[in-house]
Order: sequence, then C-alpha cells, then structure tokens
Amino acid sequence: MMKEFPELVEKANAAKEASRTTAVLSTEAKNRALGAIAAILAENKESVFAENRKDVAAARESGMKESLVDRLELDEKKMRGIVDGVHAIMALPDPVGRSDAAWVRPNGLRIMQVRVPFGLVGIIYESRPNVTVDTFALALKSGNAILLRGSRSAINTNKELVRLMKAGLASTDVPENAVALVESMDREAVDAMLKMKETIDLVIPRGGQGLINMVVQKCTIPVIETGVGNCHIFVDASADLEAAKRIIVNAKCQRPGVCNAMETLLVHKSLAETFLPEIIRLLQERGVEVRGCERTRRIAPEVKEATEQDWATEYLDLILAVKIVENVAEAIAHITRFSSGHSEAILSNDYANICRFTSEVDAAAVYVNASTRFTDGGEFGFGAEMGISTQKLHVRGPVGLKELTTSKYVIYGEGQVRQ
Amino acid sequence: MMKEFPELVEKANAAKEASRTTAVLSTEAKNRALGAIAAILAENKESVFAENRKDVAAARESGMKESLVDRLELDEKKMRGIVDGVHAIMALPDPVGRSDAAWVRPNGLRIMQVRVPFGLVGIIYESRPNVTVDTFALALKSGNAILLRGSRSAINTNKELVRLMKAGLASTDVPENAVALVESMDREAVDAMLKMKETIDLVIPRGGQGLINMVVQKCTIPVIETGVGNCHIFVDASADLEAAKRIIVNAKCQRPGVCNAMETLLVHKSLAETFLPEIIRLLQERGVEVRGCERTRRIAPEVKEATEQDWATEYLDLILAVKIVENVAEAIAHITRFSSGHSEAILSNDYANICRFTSEVDAAAVYVNASTRFTDGGEFGFGAEMGISTQKLHVRGPVGLKELTTSKYVIYGEGQVRQ
Repeated sequence: MMKEFPELVEKANAAKEASRTTAVLSTEAKNRALGAIAAILAENKESVFAENRKDVAAARESGMKESLVDRLELDEKKMRGIVDGVHAIMALPDPVGRSDAAWVRPNGLRIMQVRVPFGLVGIIYESRPNVTVDTFALALKSGNAILLRGSRSAINTNKELVRLMKAGLASTDVPENAVALVESMDREAVDAMLKMKETIDLVIPRGGQGLINMVVQKCTIPVIETGVGNCHIFVDASADLEAAKRIIVNAKCQRPGVCNAMETLLVHKSLAETFLPEIIRLLQERGVEVRGCERTRRIAPEVKEATEQDWATEYLDLILAVKIVENVAEAIAHITRFSSGHSEAILSNDYANICRFTSEVDAAAVYVNASTRFTDGGEFGFGAEMGISTQKLHVRGPVGLKELTTSKYVIYGEGQVRQ
Repeated sequence: MMKEFPELVEKANAAKEASRTTAVLSTEAKNRALGAIAAILAENKESVFAENRKDVAAARESGMKESLVDRLELDEKKMRGIVDGVHAIMALPDPVGRSDAAWVRPNGLRIMQVRVPFGLVGIIYESRPNVTVDTFALALKSGNAILLRGSRSAINTNKELVRLMKAGLASTDVPENAVALVESMDREAVDAMLKMKETIDLVIPRGGQGLINMVVQKCTIPVIETGVGNCHIFVDASADLEAAKRIIVNAKCQRPGVCNAMETLLVHKSLAETFLPEIIRLLQERGVEVRGCERTRRIAPEVKEATEQDWATEYLDLILAVKIVENVAEAIAHITRFSSGHSEAILSNDYANICRFTSEVDAAAVYVNASTRFTDGGEFGFGAEMGISTQKLHVRGPVGLKELTTSKYVIYGEGQVRQ
C-alpha cells in the first residue's frame, strides 16, 4: 500500500486548476506576473538570505561536502542572477498559440496545429535553490503551472522563495496556486508524486544521474530526462591543428564540471607522434590528468592507463581519456559504444569524413570544428533553458520555452462528416 | 531477480545494430525494400493463410470470443489491405534528413536541426496480425528498426509474416535484422523488454487500455501512448441544426468501435425541447441506446439514466450518454472532467463560444462544426499512422512518419570556442 500525502494531492489539484488559467493568459499578463516576481524577490532578498543561512548551517552541521554547500548557499551575486534570469525570461517570445503547421484538406477542413502548454509540470530537484525560481519562470512563460519538490537541505530557502513568489502573484492575473512546493520531506511523497498521472502532465528531474534514474524507474508520467554528457572530440588527420588545440583546451578546461565538457579525446593515428604529445602537454599545463590507451602510453609513457571504465565515465573534472584511432570509422564506433548522446565533435577538413560523422553519430548535438561547450540554451539562442535533454522523445538538446509546450490540432469545418 | 531471455537480448541487439544501417539509407533503398516486402507477402499469401488457420483454430478451441477471432483472422481482403498499406507507405515522403530549423549565431556557428530516426522501436501488441507488417513498414520508412512482441494467439501468423519480410529484405540494402519478432510467450519477456533502455529507443503499445496501462506502469523506456477516446460533441444554441444532425449521427454511428467516435453528447438547454427529442429519435432509429441526465429524461422519459460511470466510459459501441448543459462553460467543465484528451467538438455559430471552446478544451484535436471521426492519419493527410496519441509528450494526435523520428542538431563551426 502506498502512503497517502494529503498535502501533495491538495497542492497538485490546486496547481492543475491554476494551470487552466495560466494556459490561456495573454503574454502581457504572464510578463506582468514575472515582473512582479522579479521585483518582490529583489526587494526581499534579505529574508531569503536569512532562511538560506538556516539551511546552510544545518547542512554544514550534518557534514555536507563544501562543494555541495556551495550549490546551496545564496549570496548577492547568485540572487542577482536569479532576478536577472526572470527578467531574461520576460524578454523571450511566448511560444503559446504559435502554429507549427496549417493546411486545408480536400474536403475543406482547415487543420491548424498550435502550441499549447502541457498543464502542470512537476520538478524533482536537488539542492540548488535557483531552480525554484528559474523553473517557475520558464513554466509560467510557457503557460504551465508547476509543482516543485526540492531537497530537504534547501527546504527553508525554497519555502521562502515560493512564499515570496506567491505574494508577488497576488496583484496579478496569475493564480497563486500556479506555483506550489511540496513540503513533505518523506521520500515516499516523491514516489506518490511520480504516479499522479491524472494530475501532473510532465515530470522533469533536475539533478545528478542517481536522481534521474530514480525518476525514470518509478515515474508513470512522461519524463524529460536531462543530463549526462560523456562527450567526445575526434581529431581527424586533416584537422586545422591550431584550431584543434584551442577547441580541445576549451572543451576540457573552460568549465570541466558541466555536461557539455569533453571527457574523451580521440586522435587519428597520423597525429599520434606530432600533435598528440603537444596537446597532452598543453592540457597537463592546465592541470588536466590524462589517461591514455596503450598506444598513447607508448608515446607519452607518463600518462596513466585508461580502462574500459574510463571510456564510460563522465568525469566532470580535469581528467581526460585519450585514445588513438585508425580512422573516422573507429572513432564513430567508439562514440557509438560509449557516448551518452549529448554532444560529439569532429575536427576535420575532410568533407567525406565530416559527412559520415554528422550522419552516423547519434547524439543531441554533433559539432564540426567547434567546441562541445556550445550545447546550451543560451548559446543556441533560446534564451533560458530547463536543461539539456539526452533522450529522444519530444526534445533533444536544450529544453527551452518551446519545448515546454505541446501541440493541439484545431480543426475548422462547415458541417463535414466522414465518408 | 528478473528472468533472463537470451532470445530477446540477442534479437534486440541485432535489431539495434541494424538500425544504424537503416538510419542512413537513402529513400530509394528503403522504398525498394518496402516493394520487396509487399511483393513477397502478396506472392506467399497462401502460406500466411495456412499459419493463420492454425492460430484461428487454436483460438476457437480456447474459447476466444468471435469478435476477437475476427481481428485475428486473415482473409483475401485483409491481406490485400496489408499489401496495399505497404505500397501506400512507399509513396509517402521520407521524413529523415529534413530540417525543421536552421540559423546562424552571432559567433558564426551554423546550427541546423535535422530529423533523424529514433533507432530501435519496440512494439507490444495484441491479436491483429496486420500490425506486424504495418508497423515495420512505417518504422522502416522513417529509418528505424523494429522489435515486435505480439500476442500468443497470433504467434504462427506473426512468425510467418516476419519470416517472409526477412526473406524479402535479403535482396535489398536493408539488413534482415531490421525486423525481429520476440517468440517467447513468457509474460516476463515483455517485462524484460520494457526495461531495455540501453537498446530500445521508444516503445509503442498497440491495443486496449489494459495493455497500455501495463506498459506505462512497467516501462523505463520512453513510451508513446495511443488510444483511449472518450469524445464529446457540444451542440451550442446557435448551431446549424441540420448540420448538427448529420455530424452527430456520423460521429456516433459510422463506426462506433473506434477511438474517435463520440461517446457523450452535450446539448445547450435552449435546444432541449426541440432539437434534443429529434436527435434522440434519429439515433434510436439507428440502433443507438441513449442514456441521459435527469433533464434529458424529463424530456425523453424512455431513455435510461446516465450515471457518473457513463460520463467516464468509452463505450466503443452503439451507446450514447446525453447531457443538457447551461452554456459553453458547463460544456467545457464537463469535458475537462471526463475527456480522455482525444477529440472534442463544438457545433456553433457563436464566435465567442467557438474561441473559448477551442482555446480552453485540452485535447489532441478540437473540432468546430465537424465530426470527431476525422482524427486519423489518413484523414489528416499523413498517409498511414501508428495510432492516435492522447498523451502530450512528443506527439499528440495521429502518429505518422514524422512522429517516428526525433531530431539532432548539427553545428558547423570554423574553430569557435566558448568564451
């Protein structure tokens, strides 16, 4: 028997009800509400900091790692980032009501496919409190209501952020129930939430692989998975080697802890004796630990051995696996086996190899002669994003406002019946 | 511990491998393979009938209902329909490689979003053997490989159809492993298949509500749900009543056993004394059993009472629930509560009410002054379809060739790195 969570059911039902209002609001009304939220958060940052300090103190007391405490802790800069984020979402075009396609059938039926909100979006997330505001702003702009379930470690901060956002909505056309926070910290409350197929239209987990796997295993509601990036760069024989150095250093070192950073470098055998030692040196100078295949270690004996495990690992750190390959076919085969389907790149000037790589590599983003670090809603020009989807259903790559909508067919007739 | 099914794993891996070939085949090569399949099935229909007779005899022996035996049984006409269906899919445009969007970023990166196949599609289905061929033809044309798991009752027919299709592929560029049938009839083989997230990219259940619910509950792979249609027609005060009669009779009677048939009629109160008795009589003349709300029964005392259960039921039969409503708002509220999100219609000439209905009703297809029976891939002009999706993720409404693809971003750079 599943435990019952009246708080969850009540909040979900109220948010679903509110979603019927947010679905049909004008862009102006949604933007006014976003403006009110940005203003009230900016004005009341001290009360947010006060609640956040409680969470941070409790986290330290419980022995949380400092890197995680850092994610949890809010400061002036992060708070400004949150408020600026809401303003940025206000400025983005509203996806709702746009038509992807319209046509007339021979019988005169006029069929129009229009973008509409999902309804109620459930977010399961970890310690970063900015997710509380970012996801609501994105959901609201795309006409959705949102049900949030954050982590225990951020509960005081999240409660205060949601309290303020609701207060901000009070003077607008958006119902306060368009945002709700599940306050029960019982793990089974999440299990129950993941089964509310009649009420919640879409679930997006935001966090590490463990959280995502848990959601995928348990959820009967459609899920957009975001996340894991075991990204590769293949340097082909014909690559522009100066550009290759810049791109490799950028993809590994500019921000190693993110999903679009490179984790494995594949190098064409013809570059093994010349380019490879040089790029290894460049990376080591920047503090990168290189782990190599057997052939790599013959050329650079000081590097550690890369195991099967290395090929499969998303380091999210200044570590890089390096493999020498025979040709583009071996590079593609390696990527097919180990890629998480996020971002993959070929550095080459060989037209046939570029065509083959872009056509055969199965990933959300396939790059030619550029850094994998560009897979990002902002860099793609989408403005804000909800994460990077590495699944294939509905959305692949950055999850922006448009991807937070579904479609509906509206069919205009004049009395047509089916023959 | 989950039981192991080596047959399943082996076939799934081989089909996944084949999907890498089908993904990059030319339209011509895929069409040639479809032509070969159509030809071999037409030439060998007798061997299909022979296997089908075994299944039908076994089904009758086991006491299967005749309506289900009818679905299972193949005859000349059905076989011609199967072959014609393959030819129809050959004639449809290939969705693979088409670009939905392409743009250039300020830094010069050229981003192109292109349609690509999912990879390996898993189909879990019930007794109709035509699904075996239809789904493979659709999957192949959209560049996918397919893993089929049909019902025990059709196993001999399905084996023969798959054997023939594989033989047809032998002389083409499509690997024979692009289609595979799981022959184990152990129910746990389905459970195991629904967890093969690393191998199967998409699962589509084709069958009744029980099958769909089972798949949604157990599957960790993304699912496209097709199916249930509890469809409504609302006759507004201003409707063209002659057109309304035609549309209502069409939506209820033309083919009552399908998902886009009307199940509940909502009638504006101003039509209760005049139009309503007339339409009830028209429907009863056509053998429809009408069940009404209290107000309906005051006007037509011979009709049975409609209960809460009736409002929620997809009859798939010559039965209709009828309710008198105050206005468009009450009609929308009733639909919001009971609709399965398939097809909903308003018959009206009131502009404001039409706008409100099309905007507020949350369904895959919302009709104005036309029969709900048009929600269909063929009627929409998509050619063939894999079913009607009533979920919101990825596809809503008819699942055609385009919906059997996902997208990938290909990004062309000239050495760009992220700042």
